[in-house]
Amino acid sequence: MENEELTLERRIRAIEDRLEIYNLVAGHPPSADTGNASYAESVFTADAVFDRGPDLSGAAGNKAIGANLQSAGHRAAIAGGLAHFTSLPHVTINGDTAVVVSYLQILTPKKSGEPVEVPNHGGSRGYHIHRVVTNRWDLIRTPAGWKIKRRTLRLIDGSEPARDILRGALPAA
Amino acid sequence: MENEELTLERRIRAIEDRLEIYNLVAGHPPSADTGNASYAESVFTADAVFDRGPDLSGAAGNKAIGANLQSAGHRAAIAGGLAHFTSLPHVTINGDTAVVVSYLQILTPKKSGEPVEVPNHGGSRGYHIHRVVTNRWDLIRTPAGWKIKRRTLRLIDGSEPARDILRGALPAA
Amino acid sequence: MENEELTLERRIRAIEDRLEIYNLVAGHPPSADTGNASYAESVFTADAVFDRGPDLSGAAGNKAIGANLQSAGHRAAIAGGLAHFTSLPHVTINGDTAVVVSYLQILTPKKSGEPVEVPNHGGSRGYHIHRVVTNRWDLIRTPAGWKIKRRTLRLIDGSEPARDILRGALPAA
Repeated sequence: MENEELTLERRIRAIEDRLEIYNLVAGHPPSADTGNASYAESVFTADAVFDRGPDLSGAAGNKAIGANLQSAGHRAAIAGGLAHFTSLPHVTINGDTAVVVSYLQILTPKKSGEPVEVPNHGGSRGYHIHRVVTNRWDLIRTPAGWKIKRRTLRLIDGSEPARDILRGALPAA
Repeated sequence: MENEELTLERRIRAIEDRLEIYNLVAGHPPSADTGNASYAESVFTADAVFDRGPDLSGAAGNKAIGANLQSAGHRAAIAGGLAHFTSLPHVTINGDTAVVVSYLQILTPKKSGEPVEVPNHGGSRGYHIHRVVTNRWDLIRTPAGWKIKRRTLRLIDGSEPARDILRGALPAA
Repeated sequence: MENEELTLERRIRAIEDRLEIYNLVAGHPPSADTGNASYAESVFTADAVFDRGPDLSGAAGNKAIGANLQSAGHRAAIAGGLAHFTSLPHVTINGDTAVVVSYLQILTPKKSGEPVEVPNHGGSRGYHIHRVVTNRWDLIRTPAGWKIKRRTLRLIDGSEPARDILRGALPAA
């Protein structure tokens, strides 16, 4: 019976891990779109790597990753209206590490163009989808919960690196 | 042992709460895009508030919220093609209440412009992203399941109210 | 006590089903956007039906569904940059079958137009939302896990078929 109990407990813990990871992924857009540096510091490890690909600046270490959210450039993006929009992520947990693969859209309100009217939903010039990226999160379990050890983004532009990220969600062929 | 049992049961119930809430959030776009008033009535509390911000009409009470989905304006929006598209939500459960923070896109097919062809995926003029909003759901546990006591939307346009919603997903700084 | 145990076990299994189904849905975009035929073969049943609506080719059987991902047309779409982007799905499990209703966007980078600059996020011509579809997944439990027996897509263009799919997520009125 005790073994049964242990087994059930282990299964429940695996489920709780999964749900904690969902909230970790879902917490990212609110922190990015409000420039919350202290939240970012708390969810990345001290030696974490944030890699946005060859065209955009990255950061190493949770302090630097948080500081990026308070840079003049990032503040200007927020002031213009910034929305990080996340898909349902694919999650693979392996003991004390996990790999998450997700898609992310970065949207901003259009600054020009003719407004479109939709009944019962007002008028709007619409939104510009600035970037669509694939997203790999390498996570690690710590005494303070699941944290991000590495977050890697690659732009979907037809080139291979974005697809390499996606392959991490699927069993090796 | 009985305590163990109870503890496991409580953990399982917390997980079931979370999954029920995910389905509550995922059920909203299908109901909005088909104008299903009786579904809306069943998931909002009798005294619920639906607040779409200063520029769009809101509603108070589950009957009025449902009726809005059958207004002439909303029916016209549906007839033009209406898609509510939801991100992965962030969920915080606290006993018998819960706070959900999510992003929502409202899309419609473009009515003008040149069609674009994508191999193996036909031709299309594309879609207009009419609104991108942040979304706070204040939920309450009832004998008939989790229900919505208040749903608050704010347009992402660079102004503060949309960010105030997002802060509800993150620990106070 | 043994009954209690059984009940808890059954509840845990229902939760694990749900999470397995989330990963099944989240695994689809990575497989579609990399053209991974063997993955598709492994998640569809031998007699599965893939129905993309009257305007696009479908396929019957897991082999044919996989082969479609390696067609010249699909490869060309991938080479141009292809992103399948999924919303939070609504899941209803009923014993050994399940119905999932979700929304899906199909995006590609714009090939023309003026680039827009967003501070701290580089320049981009933006993305074209080629299709927004409603998506019904009829799933079945097998000894090798949950598999797709039928996947039905309908374009959101204001017509009834897309709404018929959505109604599958809501209780009958």
